[in-house]
Amino acid sequence: MTMNNLRFMTLAGLALGFVLVLGTDSTARVDDRTGSEQQILAVLQQQQAAWNRADIEAFMKGYWNSAELTFAGSGGVTRGWQPVLERYRERYRDAQAMGHLDFSELEVHVLGKDAAFVLGRWHLKREKDELGGVFTLVFQRFPEGWRIAHDHTSGDEPRK
Amino acid sequence: MTMNNLRFMTLAGLALGFVLVLGTDSTARVDDRTGSEQQILAVLQQQQAAWNRADIEAFMKGYWNSAELTFAGSGGVTRGWQPVLERYRERYRDAQAMGHLDFSELEVHVLGKDAAFVLGRWHLKREKDELGGVFTLVFQRFPEGWRIAHDHTSGDEPRK
Repeated sequence: MTMNNLRFMTLAGLALGFVLVLGTDSTARVDDRTGSEQQILAVLQQQQAAWNRADIEAFMKGYWNSAELTFAGSGGVTRGWQPVLERYRERYRDAQAMGHLDFSELEVHVLGKDAAFVLGRWHLKREKDELGGVFTLVFQRFPEGWRIAHDHTSGDEPRK
Repeated sequence: MTMNNLRFMTLAGLALGFVLVLGTDSTARVDDRTGSEQQILAVLQQQQAAWNRADIEAFMKGYWNSAELTFAGSGGVTRGWQPVLERYRERYRDAQAMGHLDFSELEVHVLGKDAAFVLGRWHLKREKDELGGVFTLVFQRFPEGWRIAHDHTSGDEPRK
């Protein structure tokens, strides 16, 4: 065993270290992206189902249960999980006011291992009227799973 | 030089490889967060300055120059840099229509090394009226720098 061999083996070990760390990371990223997308869409499906059985508490499970949760719209910014829940309760007092909700045209844009945003449309059909618009949801991956950390919802402007 | 020494050196090289890759990464993350925030706020300052000298082309430099850029609001979704530019041109035909723009209450939420979202307020003061509302901007880091990849802007609902 010469010094040259030793140097080669040490460098080879060093190189292997890089390859193992970087390689594992980028292989994981591909599976992760598909997995993230599916998990995020599952959260939205659960929200839609919860809304349509008039269960606002279950609907709220899609949101990050934190004082840092933000909800933005034409009424400004609502901050915190509890105030967001109360905002929904005030606006949708019973099953009739909640109506039937549909999400559509959902696009998941993955922003990294633990973040994504979803662009989509919401449509609410009620006995007396129909409402709709677009939303932007910033999702983050928490220990409890993917949750909405920020929601920006708009209503369509009246057709002219 | 025994086989044990050789094994030790190889493992040490391997370990060093891990430490170099992981260590560099997490040290970089801290500086990165502060740097990202400053760079993002600089993009918004440039946008505001460009708007206030009625230069929509320069204002548009804050947006990702891509067909994948999205702009959401009460008018639905506009897709692509060029259509977003045209939307601004149609709505704000001259310096008088553009008025004076102010961004305020800016919050940068870093979502990772290459992504962030900004929640903030916009206010437009014109000779004949004032407008305002909130926006959510999804920023991504591209080779050319941080750019808005998705904009969701709402107008405040009329006060009652």
